Amino acid sequence: MANTPHILDLIRDKRDGRAHAPEQLRWLVSSLGDIPDYQLASWLMAVTCRGLDLDETAILTDAMAHSGTVLDLSDVPGPRVDKHSTGGVGDKVTLVFGPLLATQGLTVAKLSGRGLGHTGGTVDKLESIPGFHCDLPTPRFKQQLRDLGVVLGSQSAELAPADAILYALRDVTGTVESIPLIAASVLSKKIAAGADLILIDVKTGQGAFMQDETQAEQLARALIEVGDRLGKRVICAISEMGQPLGNAVGHASEVEEAIATLRGEGPRDLTDLCVQLGAILLVAAGKAESREAGEAALRLALEDGSALERFRQVIVSQGGDPRVIDDFERLPRAGASVLVPAPATGIVQALDARAIGIAAKVLGGGRERKGARIDWAVGVDLVAKVGDRLEAGEPLATLRVNDRGRLDEAIALVQSACTLGDEPASPPALIKSLLGAL
Amino acid sequence: MANTPHILDLIRDKRDGRAHAPEQLRWLVSSLGDIPDYQLASWLMAVTCRGLDLDETAILTDAMAHSGTVLDLSDVPGPRVDKHSTGGVGDKVTLVFGPLLATQGLTVAKLSGRGLGHTGGTVDKLESIPGFHCDLPTPRFKQQLRDLGVVLGSQSAELAPADAILYALRDVTGTVESIPLIAASVLSKKIAAGADLILIDVKTGQGAFMQDETQAEQLARALIEVGDRLGKRVICAISEMGQPLGNAVGHASEVEEAIATLRGEGPRDLTDLCVQLGAILLVAAGKAESREAGEAALRLALEDGSALERFRQVIVSQGGDPRVIDDFERLPRAGASVLVPAPATGIVQALDARAIGIAAKVLGGGRERKGARIDWAVGVDLVAKVGDRLEAGEPLATLRVNDRGRLDEAIALVQSACTLGDEPASPPALIKSLLGAL
Repeated sequence: MANTPHILDLIRDKRDGRAHAPEQLRWLVSSLGDIPDYQLASWLMAVTCRGLDLDETAILTDAMAHSGTVLDLSDVPGPRVDKHSTGGVGDKVTLVFGPLLATQGLTVAKLSGRGLGHTGGTVDKLESIPGFHCDLPTPRFKQQLRDLGVVLGSQSAELAPADAILYALRDVTGTVESIPLIAASVLSKKIAAGADLILIDVKTGQGAFMQDETQAEQLARALIEVGDRLGKRVICAISEMGQPLGNAVGHASEVEEAIATLRGEGPRDLTDLCVQLGAILLVAAGKAESREAGEAALRLALEDGSALERFRQVIVSQGGDPRVIDDFERLPRAGASVLVPAPATGIVQALDARAIGIAAKVLGGGRERKGARIDWAVGVDLVAKVGDRLEAGEPLATLRVNDRGRLDEAIALVQSACTLGDEPASPPALIKSLLGAL
Repeated sequence: MANTPHILDLIRDKRDGRAHAPEQLRWLVSSLGDIPDYQLASWLMAVTCRGLDLDETAILTDAMAHSGTVLDLSDVPGPRVDKHSTGGVGDKVTLVFGPLLATQGLTVAKLSGRGLGHTGGTVDKLESIPGFHCDLPTPRFKQQLRDLGVVLGSQSAELAPADAILYALRDVTGTVESIPLIAASVLSKKIAAGADLILIDVKTGQGAFMQDETQAEQLARALIEVGDRLGKRVICAISEMGQPLGNAVGHASEVEEAIATLRGEGPRDLTDLCVQLGAILLVAAGKAESREAGEAALRLALEDGSALERFRQVIVSQGGDPRVIDDFERLPRAGASVLVPAPATGIVQALDARAIGIAAKVLGGGRERKGARIDWAVGVDLVAKVGDRLEAGEPLATLRVNDRGRLDEAIALVQSACTLGDEPASPPALIKSLLGAL
């Protein structure tokens, strides 16, 4: 009789710092539905304290990726690229990035999630476009990939379901902040979604999973090494989770800002980040000689209208109303616009993205729990950003408001998010470092 | 508004190696019923990996001790002593120890548990005496303490209920083997039971919680230091969990052996351990000038019948039939006696106490789950012990048998427990070292 692994053996092994055998990890993932929460929680904490080595992390990632449907994109032209950010407020990069890279011959099958807590979800943002839907049947999904080179889809429940089980438990047991568990969670979903070349934007700083740059680099190395073991190319950009990216935080307002960016008229930080990250992928995929050449090609695609045209085709193909591109009034509009005055005079030293994200949630643009309804129309439009000088009472931001019930709270949050000072200040570098072979 | 502690804060603090504030620990113990198992499990594993310092352990112990009834024995003459063993097979020391020490003017309020798994429980052993009951109302409990200086009682559910909750979860989450959690569990019950002077027999070796002597010493130091912080004197003897203590493993058979020992006719190892541990307590309590003098006094009490007489009085006072002392036929008897032959010729090098405990359980003398019925009559009587020479086929043990359903399994277990070799062997030292001020 073969020895069946037992969860208590895994718990004790990890508690005592012993490595798991591959069959132990595969058994664990296949048994998640049968293991009581309290034993899984104990194992997760043992892993958080003792770690998993790269081989263990790779096996765990692979088992999680194969816990549900794995998209087979081998009949779609490559290279099939994917981009992931480890969380951020006002991060509408995906909306710009997919259509933009598709103009350069890359295939971008992007499966996004919904928002929870203070960060908005890409799927929710897209659904603020009337008629747009993200849930495509696989044949249509692949056809659009072949036709347009880009799909902006939603993660189905069949995609790496083991990750959903583990993540829900990690969230309530203090075991989110484990590098191997983050790596396995991120990569398992990307692998299940069929990508070959994966760019991961690892956020660091206050409010990010990885508080300091050393940890962010450790996570980046784990992602790259685990990808390598599983035959996937992973490149990591480390960036600071400083102020929100762009000026808009909200669903419809972020769609507006993405459209402006695709037209070549977006905020500089958002445009630069999309172009810089995109160029990295172009070089890695052999579609550009250098990052400079890649950046030039992408800026051209923003200026000559080809990137925006690709987004228009995506909207049409996914059932949305493409007229929103030229007429923002067709997007959900808030009933009122309320100015948030600067609480004092000074130069903006910092803008706490988390507090601004919570302000947007307080206005009705976020979820407290899964499945709750959200108001696409509301949000925060920043007027000033880090480095700008403000007189007391000058507008710091504009709120898009429908329900005034918690308006004062939202105003206070935006004001508290803003640190004013006398010194000149400059925004954090967009990409602090880059890891992984180009 | 005061900050209410939250279990996730405790989990994260401990995960990251930060010490808990006293109010966090007191809140945790008072909230055990409201915290989901998976969060408690995560905290227990964080504690197992990161540890608790002595101050934290003392606060936790105190909070657990006061989670239910705390026996107030201040109106009973002192010193009120207690003795605890961290687990053992064939450990009937308590049955001998209480009456024996009471003859020397110590007060022994002993609250024991029932057996689970492969170790027998003192309460179950005592209940094999017809009519004996361990569950005394507090006024009778105290009266017997004043009259006889000894009660052999049972732990009520009101005694340190926080420990019961935590222990049940530790058992299934791989978090039993944590020195601070063991210390808090042991001492909280002793403190709730009203003892001032506590002797703890810390077992080491295979099958014990503490596998090696270094760990056993760490546990002993934690017990002593935590006791000191809480105003209790704790003395620890470190002993090896080698072969079973004495020859009898079973309920009625262990009562017989305890009676023989109280009559001065017991097996040498059991007698010596009772006398040695007892002398330590006599010195610590100021009732003997030296351990030698204490041992002499205790041996006299065994030989002159006073210890046995005290046990007879305990049996009467707790409702049992004292005639069992002179007539073992009045104890539960098994229907058959089955010899276990030595599987080969040689000198007994080792006798695995755990395997012999399981053999007794297989015969019907143990519980697989709480509340199950057990057969008091069955058990294993060892004929040979470590150092004895056996010819193949000579009796190694005698089994007391009622149900032959798993007899072959029990025989195989006893045979497998015995390691035979050519070299002379001597039994492990009873007390390897002693920690704490006498």
